[in-house]
Amino acid sequence: MEGENCDPARPDNPQVFPTPESGQRRRRPLERSVDFPVCAVLPAGGTGERTGLRTPKQFCSVLGRPLISYTVQAFERVSWIQSIAVVVAKENMDLMTDIIQRFQHKKVQVVEGGSTRHRSICNGVRALGEAVGEEEQVMAANRPKVVIIHDAVRPFVEEDFLYKIAMAAKEQGAAGAIRPLVSTVIATTSEGYLDHSLERARYRASEMPQGFTYDVIYQAYQRCTDADFEFGTECLHLALQYCGTKAKLIEGPPTLWKVTYKRDLAAAESIIKETLSRSACIVTGGSAPAATLADALQNAFRALDMELNVTPDLMGDNSKYLVNEWNFIQISVSHPCLSEVEAILTDLDAANRALLHPVVVIWVHLSSLDELSISRTMAEPAAIRDLASAAKLRNILLYGIQLHQSTDTECWERSVLRVAEIMSTLIRDRSPALVGQLLQA
Amino acid sequence: MEGENCDPARPDNPQVFPTPESGQRRRRPLERSVDFPVCAVLPAGGTGERTGLRTPKQFCSVLGRPLISYTVQAFERVSWIQSIAVVVAKENMDLMTDIIQRFQHKKVQVVEGGSTRHRSICNGVRALGEAVGEEEQVMAANRPKVVIIHDAVRPFVEEDFLYKIAMAAKEQGAAGAIRPLVSTVIATTSEGYLDHSLERARYRASEMPQGFTYDVIYQAYQRCTDADFEFGTECLHLALQYCGTKAKLIEGPPTLWKVTYKRDLAAAESIIKETLSRSACIVTGGSAPAATLADALQNAFRALDMELNVTPDLMGDNSKYLVNEWNFIQISVSHPCLSEVEAILTDLDAANRALLHPVVVIWVHLSSLDELSISRTMAEPAAIRDLASAAKLRNILLYGIQLHQSTDTECWERSVLRVAEIMSTLIRDRSPALVGQLLQA
Repeated sequence: MEGENCDPARPDNPQVFPTPESGQRRRRPLERSVDFPVCAVLPAGGTGERTGLRTPKQFCSVLGRPLISYTVQAFERVSWIQSIAVVVAKENMDLMTDIIQRFQHKKVQVVEGGSTRHRSICNGVRALGEAVGEEEQVMAANRPKVVIIHDAVRPFVEEDFLYKIAMAAKEQGAAGAIRPLVSTVIATTSEGYLDHSLERARYRASEMPQGFTYDVIYQAYQRCTDADFEFGTECLHLALQYCGTKAKLIEGPPTLWKVTYKRDLAAAESIIKETLSRSACIVTGGSAPAATLADALQNAFRALDMELNVTPDLMGDNSKYLVNEWNFIQISVSHPCLSEVEAILTDLDAANRALLHPVVVIWVHLSSLDELSISRTMAEPAAIRDLASAAKLRNILLYGIQLHQSTDTECWERSVLRVAEIMSTLIRDRSPALVGQLLQA
Repeated sequence: MEGENCDPARPDNPQVFPTPESGQRRRRPLERSVDFPVCAVLPAGGTGERTGLRTPKQFCSVLGRPLISYTVQAFERVSWIQSIAVVVAKENMDLMTDIIQRFQHKKVQVVEGGSTRHRSICNGVRALGEAVGEEEQVMAANRPKVVIIHDAVRPFVEEDFLYKIAMAAKEQGAAGAIRPLVSTVIATTSEGYLDHSLERARYRASEMPQGFTYDVIYQAYQRCTDADFEFGTECLHLALQYCGTKAKLIEGPPTLWKVTYKRDLAAAESIIKETLSRSACIVTGGSAPAATLADALQNAFRALDMELNVTPDLMGDNSKYLVNEWNFIQISVSHPCLSEVEAILTDLDAANRALLHPVVVIWVHLSSLDELSISRTMAEPAAIRDLASAAKLRNILLYGIQLHQSTDTECWERSVLRVAEIMSTLIRDRSPALVGQLLQA
């Protein structure tokens, strides 16, 4: 099932999300077979006071999309997860419904939260028991076997780890992610002095996701006290106390980190941008000077730690790039002509490629020496600016670069290097304010 | 003493560093009187394996400067801190010495580290006892009264908090920063199951900085065992165990955070960029159209959450902007002429302004309608590109924007808005690859 799309109109996003901290390319996850129904609860009722922002952090925009949509996407693309209950505060129900529509999420139900974290999670668990949603999974009592609980502000969780949690939860009744402690934990006296410090090796930080069989988490919430609902934070603890279920603890990767402070939003954006900027597709139109330039750029890009795929066009087999790439470079030789780049924009629109992430398209006008004066007329900058303004509305970021051919080898090599640096900056920064600019190499 | 510079040739950097997470402007710290000698030890021997990068994280570059230089700067600007021992691994001694020279740090001595964190800190403490460095502070036994220990990878620590730690350390013998726990801490069984979870309210994360009287930290290291040196991490614990000193614990601000993972480098960069991008100075040259444009830009900048100071020139009293600002906008009206912007570059060089952070200079050519054709000749882009290439070598980032006057109000307002967005992007991104570009508004 893995790799299949729940909606054929949606792009497959094969290269993207989530990404390991190490910057390694993502390997294709193993084919997973999960033969029992799994659902997820994403509590997203927090007010995000620690970010120092007015908007709760799960609704903060990262590259034009709310953080929570990234987390939903991380669950939605997992074929064996059937339904996702997103639990939000009453005042954010409409906002969440809008997000689901706008980014075409399919497996989500929006559930109204309670006054505390446990009350919100409990509402999500109950909602999943009432209706699983997909006809073919109308199970006995309509309940999933396993529920995975995850924070809405941990968008980089990976399928492999969700699988481990689901399997351990089914086997043990409960399972949770742990990470090594980053700081020494100390006990304080009531006067604010050091009492003792804990031996770091014996303790772990409890993180998310956690998984439970439906029965365990449902019973735990049935039996726990008002005080638990009010002041508790740890679901694993409730499972232990009220169901006698000792959770299996699984060491998770650093990608489980939680967006807590304003600075974490910048970190999240940088991870996402890096993932979108690993490679680009350069379209030569089959011309010889363009192919020569593409070759030179390929070398320069390698030094900048980016991959460049060269293709004469985006037709037939080469249309795979339209589905696989987040960045396109179109080289036009001689007479400046935007029709080729217009075709790419049309294709991207047709493939609905810019729904989840902005796509970068760079138009390069490679001019020979004798057209210097013509190419600096006003017509060309105005044309690309108009095209870019229209594309920007559809989340496609179009930039232009003007490059003059040179017979002086040294001068030409310098230009190629500069153009590669400009391209890599445009691709990495994805800056909306600079769309439509015609830059000079 | 506070606010005085140890070197008159060094800029005062009044607006910058460190910055609270909340994005509030930094208020001028209170005048502090510390009437006892305080020194600092920055252990920087780590290998940074958690970042997933080859370079240890304290040496990773943020806006062209190693992270550790930011941390050194945070201590160096505090007038009552006399000397800073930076402890690095033997193989990084030369690198650290180069960093000190290049960024003109004055209070630093480089100390060779040991095989563990405690051994490194101990070396730093001993080095401080041997020579304090400044003639006027040759105290009895040459020792500082208080030693502050801080991680090289927590660059955003503020003077106010260092003051609290120093005062509490002098009074109690030991003091340390604490923060609330971000995750529940759990104890695990040897088989990897949940044993119990700790009650979050009773525990704290022990962070840095920590402060000790010289005697306490020195004695603690004299008395502790090889096992402590080998496996221990917590200085407060040694002070308690070997000197009977109960450390005073002080709740620190979120700015104490530690750069641990690769994503944290992006977060640090974003905090630094934000701090450098809060305001800009716009130089009108006294012309009426330029002043009108400056007024309009001032409004647009406010909406973008940036402040714009308008001045006719940078002479006399107005030269304060040269010392206070990280961003300059020079408007040239009519005939494109780069001499004014060249003068700014010369002044910035003379003031040594771009030593610690890149400075952005944006040249705006405001042209009237009848010179459209002239301004698109090749001469102007080439001139600004050459000027920018030279400035970039001195850490000044020069960009150009071409703006055409319009009699159509709506069209003009749109242009002003676009130019403000472009400026704010150039200032915030500080992209080296785009210097010398002549952008179109």
